[in-house]
Amino acid sequence: MMRVGVVGAGMIGRDHVRRLTSVISGVTVTAVADVDTGAAARVAATTGAAVHPDGLAVVAAEDVDAVVVCSWGDTHETYVLAAVTAGKPVFCEKPLATSPEACLRIVEAEVAHGRRLVQVGYMRRYDTAYRALKNVLDSGTIGAPLMMHCAHRNAGVPAFYQPENTITDTAVHEIDMVRWMFGTEITAVRVLRPRPSRNAGGITDPVLLVLELANEMLVDVEISVNARYGYDIRGEILCENGTVALADQNPITVRREGHLTSPVPADWRERFSAAYDVELREWAAAAVPDGPSAWDGYAAAVVSDAAVQSLRSEERVEITLANRPELYDPTSGDLD
Amino acid sequence: MMRVGVVGAGMIGRDHVRRLTSVISGVTVTAVADVDTGAAARVAATTGAAVHPDGLAVVAAEDVDAVVVCSWGDTHETYVLAAVTAGKPVFCEKPLATSPEACLRIVEAEVAHGRRLVQVGYMRRYDTAYRALKNVLDSGTIGAPLMMHCAHRNAGVPAFYQPENTITDTAVHEIDMVRWMFGTEITAVRVLRPRPSRNAGGITDPVLLVLELANEMLVDVEISVNARYGYDIRGEILCENGTVALADQNPITVRREGHLTSPVPADWRERFSAAYDVELREWAAAAVPDGPSAWDGYAAAVVSDAAVQSLRSEERVEITLANRPELYDPTSGDLD
Amino acid sequence: MMRVGVVGAGMIGRDHVRRLTSVISGVTVTAVADVDTGAAARVAATTGAAVHPDGLAVVAAEDVDAVVVCSWGDTHETYVLAAVTAGKPVFCEKPLATSPEACLRIVEAEVAHGRRLVQVGYMRRYDTAYRALKNVLDSGTIGAPLMMHCAHRNAGVPAFYQPENTITDTAVHEIDMVRWMFGTEITAVRVLRPRPSRNAGGITDPVLLVLELANEMLVDVEISVNARYGYDIRGEILCENGTVALADQNPITVRREGHLTSPVPADWRERFSAAYDVELREWAAAAVPDGPSAWDGYAAAVVSDAAVQSLRSEERVEITLANRPELYDPTSGDLD
Amino acid sequence: MMRVGVVGAGMIGRDHVRRLTSVISGVTVTAVADVDTGAAARVAATTGAAVHPDGLAVVAAEDVDAVVVCSWGDTHETYVLAAVTAGKPVFCEKPLATSPEACLRIVEAEVAHGRRLVQVGYMRRYDTAYRALKNVLDSGTIGAPLMMHCAHRNAGVPAFYQPENTITDTAVHEIDMVRWMFGTEITAVRVLRPRPSRNAGGITDPVLLVLELANEMLVDVEISVNARYGYDIRGEILCENGTVALADQNPITVRREGHLTSPVPADWRERFSAAYDVELREWAAAAVPDGPSAWDGYAAAVVSDAAVQSLRSEERVEITLANRPELYDPTSGDLD
Repeated sequence: MMRVGVVGAGMIGRDHVRRLTSVISGVTVTAVADVDTGAAARVAATTGAAVHPDGLAVVAAEDVDAVVVCSWGDTHETYVLAAVTAGKPVFCEKPLATSPEACLRIVEAEVAHGRRLVQVGYMRRYDTAYRALKNVLDSGTIGAPLMMHCAHRNAGVPAFYQPENTITDTAVHEIDMVRWMFGTEITAVRVLRPRPSRNAGGITDPVLLVLELANEMLVDVEISVNARYGYDIRGEILCENGTVALADQNPITVRREGHLTSPVPADWRERFSAAYDVELREWAAAAVPDGPSAWDGYAAAVVSDAAVQSLRSEERVEITLANRPELYDPTSGDLD
Repeated sequence: MMRVGVVGAGMIGRDHVRRLTSVISGVTVTAVADVDTGAAARVAATTGAAVHPDGLAVVAAEDVDAVVVCSWGDTHETYVLAAVTAGKPVFCEKPLATSPEACLRIVEAEVAHGRRLVQVGYMRRYDTAYRALKNVLDSGTIGAPLMMHCAHRNAGVPAFYQPENTITDTAVHEIDMVRWMFGTEITAVRVLRPRPSRNAGGITDPVLLVLELANEMLVDVEISVNARYGYDIRGEILCENGTVALADQNPITVRREGHLTSPVPADWRERFSAAYDVELREWAAAAVPDGPSAWDGYAAAVVSDAAVQSLRSEERVEITLANRPELYDPTSGDLD
Repeated sequence: MMRVGVVGAGMIGRDHVRRLTSVISGVTVTAVADVDTGAAARVAATTGAAVHPDGLAVVAAEDVDAVVVCSWGDTHETYVLAAVTAGKPVFCEKPLATSPEACLRIVEAEVAHGRRLVQVGYMRRYDTAYRALKNVLDSGTIGAPLMMHCAHRNAGVPAFYQPENTITDTAVHEIDMVRWMFGTEITAVRVLRPRPSRNAGGITDPVLLVLELANEMLVDVEISVNARYGYDIRGEILCENGTVALADQNPITVRREGHLTSPVPADWRERFSAAYDVELREWAAAAVPDGPSAWDGYAAAVVSDAAVQSLRSEERVEITLANRPELYDPTSGDLD
Repeated sequence: MMRVGVVGAGMIGRDHVRRLTSVISGVTVTAVADVDTGAAARVAATTGAAVHPDGLAVVAAEDVDAVVVCSWGDTHETYVLAAVTAGKPVFCEKPLATSPEACLRIVEAEVAHGRRLVQVGYMRRYDTAYRALKNVLDSGTIGAPLMMHCAHRNAGVPAFYQPENTITDTAVHEIDMVRWMFGTEITAVRVLRPRPSRNAGGITDPVLLVLELANEMLVDVEISVNARYGYDIRGEILCENGTVALADQNPITVRREGHLTSPVPADWRERFSAAYDVELREWAAAAVPDGPSAWDGYAAAVVSDAAVQSLRSEERVEITLANRPELYDPTSGDLD
């Protein structure tokens, strides 16, 4: 039974606690902390976990084998570094940290430790449809990839959503997915601004990202965060001899009043709940994490930064990464 | 330029005249008659055709090379026989005649004439989707056919629709299609009565036909004539190694208010208008008609009669056909 | 932590043990037995469960709170009755027992006990798509149901598959689904024999079942157990104002060599694995089981028997059930 | 009966002659010319048309009421100007002429004539699916358009295909469609170069066009002319409250060998043959042409030129059109 300590008892923290205790076997939640001590106490009450004064105490607790970090983004660096120092596996919700420099400090700490301890919460890699996409691509039956067309649409976003969140909260999932799907780095990004939606409030919405990859591919990504009609994630990969695309996933079709209809998911919970389950199940089962690594978290942060810069300047921005330490070689399993 | 005389200027007659004059090249409408002489006069006014006192005069007219019969069903026999006697090609809307005996008199007259002159208006044989179904079937790539599942749904039917019309007007299209699709005769029929729809008025609706074929296949056919949501024609053929089915045909998909939707056709005009065009174009272009023959019209009448009997008795009814004259051998092209 | 004893360590038994220990939280497997003691020992080795000499010892074990029965069908009655007598919840793979009389003995024992302890393994009730179908039906938006068209196709079946298995192993899933979907009993069944597939060996395959329901609905069910192309489960419900149907479920579409393609599941494991997970998770979480009841197991056995009789006689067979004890009233939650 | 003269008896010329004589009623082909006099003679032999020494003679012929120009692109200006001068309606295959200046000379001649005589052969405006797209857009039910994503894929291209043809032959259809769909002009274009396909020979293929519209919309267009798997035309319009997209159009679905498949069109003939029929039928029936105008031909030429420049420079190119004469106001029906 793996004993997990959870830092952060907000919405996503509570959801991960539910998953760790009700959906995944072989795990028990033994410790929890939150700046809102009431929230921590409520989680503790349902799980029998001990409430700790802060995240560092959770990381340090003797009955904590592994840590899940779900606190605010700007606290991630502290807790992840503490876990690495303590030699404990740590699952950190995205982003890994709020600047490329902070991410790089985590990478360096992990390299110093000598083996992987950190996994970042990019759940698309665990989605059945994206995995099927990658299987077809890797099978070689449709040839080498040339382009990918993506769209990420939210029905709406919360009031606190800021213009940069289009990139840092939303597009960042596409950025990680692209790096994983094609096993290559993103070398430049350009953010274009179409006609703005009147549903969008102060946000620049939609936007169109054009990503350039080290293998010469182009990937275009529409981000619409006030699309109204539902939550819709699209992707089609053009290869030399064919294409592979995410399909609409409808369990049923209804014929009614002159139309054939099927439901569109309402939000990311509905679309990706199974992927979140698989993500944490595979994480809990792995001796060494092989999901999104600290390096992936760093690279996503760098591309994200460049995209925010391009969103402001409307110019193409080139991307330079630090040298990738051997620990993160694709043969190590995390980027292929 | 083929000169066509049209008997019957009702809805379907006017539609065929429009087709012959505006959609199909190489044809001119020179003569028309209807018991409603005003209706005949209106058609004549738009086409330059001469109004004749009755259908026999149309058939006899010197400037009529071929005849299209769209009058009431119980007059079909008279006009078709007259055309055969005159040695003129005749396209007759379904049914060929209102009893198997009358159909057989036409068959005998045509056999006496020595070559095919008669075509019956079963338009499904000209529909792109049904033809694609038959092409796959005949290609042998999915093996021999074992069953077919069909559904024929109307949004609603006119007030004058009678209980037997479920069979004689509606199911008869499926009956002809099945004989053509599999190149074999129907040997027995059973009509089952599911829970009746409260939309159906006095009609037994829906019904389920189970057709037994000479090649041992079973074909089940749902007929719903008050389905409300639209006009929907389905068919899936189960073969030994795979299946082939009619697809939903939607030019577009709309995403809106939580749903992905596409339109369903409103009625048979929308669904089969292209098939009607092809039917008359191929008829007009053929020296000898190779569409549904007098024999096909006769066989449909016999099966239809048996189905009406089963609708009343709820018993399985066996079907016996006369011997098929050589003129209608499949090698002649009309049944395989 | 619920302590579960497992009777039967064959393929399905091992799969349920894997599910109970790796997929579902809050459960531990403490006891196991199998006539093949080696098989029981291998399961025990991976779980820490104790090997017992026989199923009755598993049921009786002090550290067993609930029982899962996965042994051969003709032993089910003994173990289920023992569990009921011991007052322990028991999940029994289908069939509940191999005769209606045996099922009725279980029903009577449970009624004597006074509350529900038994759940039968009909997993379709836990499938996302079937549940969505039922939600639309129950919402009333498309009116009252009139007919349902079903097909159940296996790519192939094992060598030991007998003619009756078409009904007792395969159609029985459709029989339970129909009773649950419409909350009504099946009153008659007729099994029709289409042209036999040359892939079928000695089996009568395909067959077409026509089920008559107490609410006057008709349900037709194609069973094909050598369909070659894949595992395919279909269902469309015709209602007064619309229809609802199971959709093809494809995570992706591939365009290649002139075709748009998507994969069909290979077998029931692929199609229903998530439903099996949900089934056991809900069972483990429920204080009183609310899945398929002993009554459901009894009714399925009676209908199944009638269908086997009809398969042999080719006659329509009427179905009479015992009086349903109050314990199984729909308000108790298991049949609505 | 409208008497049509045809200039050019190559592949597309012969196809239009077939259409005018066999598919469309009310038209006769009376005159034909081609630099290859044998080709002209063969067309004449099948239609009874007279062979003329050159296109100008066809335009001038007394028994020619209207002209169809299908000769090489660089001869279009001469014949179209001659027809305008003669006051005869002229249908000109795309491009209207090979430079913006030449197109503008035709515009000026038509304006001087005082009413529309010229129609350009952009057939997508006549395609059922594109029209359905525009109907939904114009209905306002999904709000104002913000972006459109397009793809145009050919299985392969002929050996004589040059790099610029990606724009001038292929993308030009998308350019005209976008102007028509949104009733607005294109103000800038950028052509991006993804990883090149090894199927492409010397062509830059695929390319990604980003079009900026006067209404602030962005439209991205993938052009792949060696996509191998088939001919595939895609379009999805993102609006404020929903989307509308071209659907895959498959008459049938086949289940076979583990897959559900449906055919993809092989080439543009298969995909757009019905649109070509409607295009010429509506043209022949219209007293004043209301299809793509000389102005549309001019605008397409200007955008096309800019895109070719961007293809070479990889820079964004802004587009400036001449002032649009009143004759082409949207209220005149040709652009809205």
